[in-house]
Amino acid sequence: MTKAATPLVKRLAVIGLGLIGGSLARVLRERGAVGEVVGIGRGEANLKRGVELGVIDRYCLDPTEGVRGADVVFVATPVCSIPTVVERIAPHLEDGCIVTDGGSVKEFVVNACEPLMRPGTFFVGGHPIAGTEHSGVEASFATLYQGKRCIVTPTEKTDPAALAKVVKIWAYAGSAVPVMDPATHDRMLAAISHLPHMVAYSLVNAVDGYDRFGGELLAFSAGGFRDFTRIASSDPVMWRDIALTNQEAILETMDFFSDYLGKLRTLVAAADGPGLEAFFRNSKEKRDAIL
Amino acid sequence: MTKAATPLVKRLAVIGLGLIGGSLARVLRERGAVGEVVGIGRGEANLKRGVELGVIDRYCLDPTEGVRGADVVFVATPVCSIPTVVERIAPHLEDGCIVTDGGSVKEFVVNACEPLMRPGTFFVGGHPIAGTEHSGVEASFATLYQGKRCIVTPTEKTDPAALAKVVKIWAYAGSAVPVMDPATHDRMLAAISHLPHMVAYSLVNAVDGYDRFGGELLAFSAGGFRDFTRIASSDPVMWRDIALTNQEAILETMDFFSDYLGKLRTLVAAADGPGLEAFFRNSKEKRDAIL
Ligand SMILES: NC(=O)c1ccc[n+]([C@@H]2O[C@H](COP(=O)([O-])OP(=O)(O)OC[C@H]3O[C@@H](n4cnc5c(N)ncnc54)[C@H](OP(=O)(O)O)[C@@H]3O)[C@@H](O)[C@H]2O)c1
Ligand SMILES: NC(=O)c1ccc[n+]([C@@H]2O[C@H](COP(=O)([O-])OP(=O)(O)OC[C@H]3O[C@@H](n4cnc5c(N)ncnc54)[C@H](OP(=O)(O)O)[C@@H]3O)[C@@H](O)[C@H]2O)c1
Repeated sequence: MTKAATPLVKRLAVIGLGLIGGSLARVLRERGAVGEVVGIGRGEANLKRGVELGVIDRYCLDPTEGVRGADVVFVATPVCSIPTVVERIAPHLEDGCIVTDGGSVKEFVVNACEPLMRPGTFFVGGHPIAGTEHSGVEASFATLYQGKRCIVTPTEKTDPAALAKVVKIWAYAGSAVPVMDPATHDRMLAAISHLPHMVAYSLVNAVDGYDRFGGELLAFSAGGFRDFTRIASSDPVMWRDIALTNQEAILETMDFFSDYLGKLRTLVAAADGPGLEAFFRNSKEKRDAIL
Repeated sequence: MTKAATPLVKRLAVIGLGLIGGSLARVLRERGAVGEVVGIGRGEANLKRGVELGVIDRYCLDPTEGVRGADVVFVATPVCSIPTVVERIAPHLEDGCIVTDGGSVKEFVVNACEPLMRPGTFFVGGHPIAGTEHSGVEASFATLYQGKRCIVTPTEKTDPAALAKVVKIWAYAGSAVPVMDPATHDRMLAAISHLPHMVAYSLVNAVDGYDRFGGELLAFSAGGFRDFTRIASSDPVMWRDIALTNQEAILETMDFFSDYLGKLRTLVAAADGPGLEAFFRNSKEKRDAIL
């Protein structure tokens, strides 16, 4: 297949060549939607591997140099590091350059990054709702975003053309692209993603700590437990940053969840058969509806 | 393949022809380990379907008649109904008959059923650690127990030959067969199975109840949430019975879990980066070790 005469992105710089950054680079290259991909990172071995795997065309260890001539920069590092990265590259961006990110929390990132942009360069926040519990460029694959959603989170200040371009990039990657404000994103994600991770991490630690059985317990655990706790294998640094930057919404959903767990505890303690059945049935019905 | 001259079980009666009962019938028939399988249930349509699907040879709506001539009876109905079923059939069992069950809670079942047996007939408790979130004979399949564990829970009073036979049946079904006392079983299963179900049911109800987003929330939920909450699609009656009969151990593990969730809440509220990372890392390491 010959590439389109003018690809959607002429030069893409990906900062943080891991699962999220690597997968976007792969799909855009595969679809001929990008002229050149430059990988930027702190470790040379990982970037070399990216070239070997055909994820990027070339790499650069210095971000200020790596972004030169890029029309789009994708920052796919852990959430807390995104503003630091953007601050570093901002003075070196070409006119018209769009910086976007893949961080899992948006209000923190967008509030911090928007004011860092020079006039004539643009920041647009984004978050692909896609991932696995694996990290690194080796774990990246071109179909990660296929049939998923990537939420894009403009503000009042966002440039409409830059927004449209970021939406188009994610559509090329195969995702539906809902648009919402950063705060709404963060509250929704707290409920459907951050809370479940907090619960899963706590559950594995609790079962591990419940040591009446001399450490035999986890070895005995059935398929259900393994599946249920898969998300507790997610990267600790990524989740530390999410917990630090979406603190308020996470605390709110944790408290909300604790109330429900408390309601169930009351039903169990009261041996309330009809109440227990109704509690479980409501959950099953709601869960089955999203299958 | 011709059947062995004397199969392991001459006539198997299965009471409650659902996922668990149907799957045991299927595998024993497939392996030529049973001469005849009689299905016993309250609804004729389900039993007819069992004959059509080749799960059972014939059926009987009256349990007292259905168990006639059976050398093994497998009771695979919800936990609370098992003693009622056993009480009903006990006077009608042939000499030497072994009654075993597949109920998810064992102390309640074994304590209730052992005293119901006439001299010369035997009760042995069992629990296959295998299942899906689907119910009914249609959901049953011969390989359900392959490579899984079935815990068998004798007491001091259990007949050794009857125990050996039940162990052999589950080995034929493809399972490893650990043997432990009913109370140990119930505490282990509370931690690795009952607690995760209580947590998953509570999580789905909490997210469903967290209605700031006008019911959009569950529709938006990512793959992680769907996988994580799969067990919240399990049968409400089955889980009502488990919650009613393993009350003490479930309350204990729920409280244990709440403590860990509380610890994590404190770390989030304190924005304790190193503490959060350590909490998540311990969980990931423990989880990865059971993969
Ligand atoms: N995994 C998911 O399920 C998922 C889903 C949606 C969004 N996200 C978000 O996507 C972003 C990346 O996640 P990922 O799963 O792709 O992680 P990953 O596979 O570990 O990749 C992250 C990359 O960022 C670089 N990096 C790490 N720490 C850094 C720091 N302090 N400063 C600068 N660069 C750093 C690393 O590259 P070098 O070591 O070479 O510099 C690494 O390759 C995160 O913001 C995460 O919240 C993740
Ligand atoms: N599903 C799992 O993951 C799993 C795993 C391990 C153990 N178990 C245990 O295995 C047992 C059966 O579970 P299952 O998943 O096979 O359920 P299932 O597919 O719903 O089958 C249960 C059967 O029991 C009969 N039954 C229901 N209520 C009854 C009652 N009150 N009295 C007499 N019979 C009744 C029903 O047949 P009729 O309506 O035809 O009478 C039904 O076919 C339960 O004790 C459960 O705790 C389940």
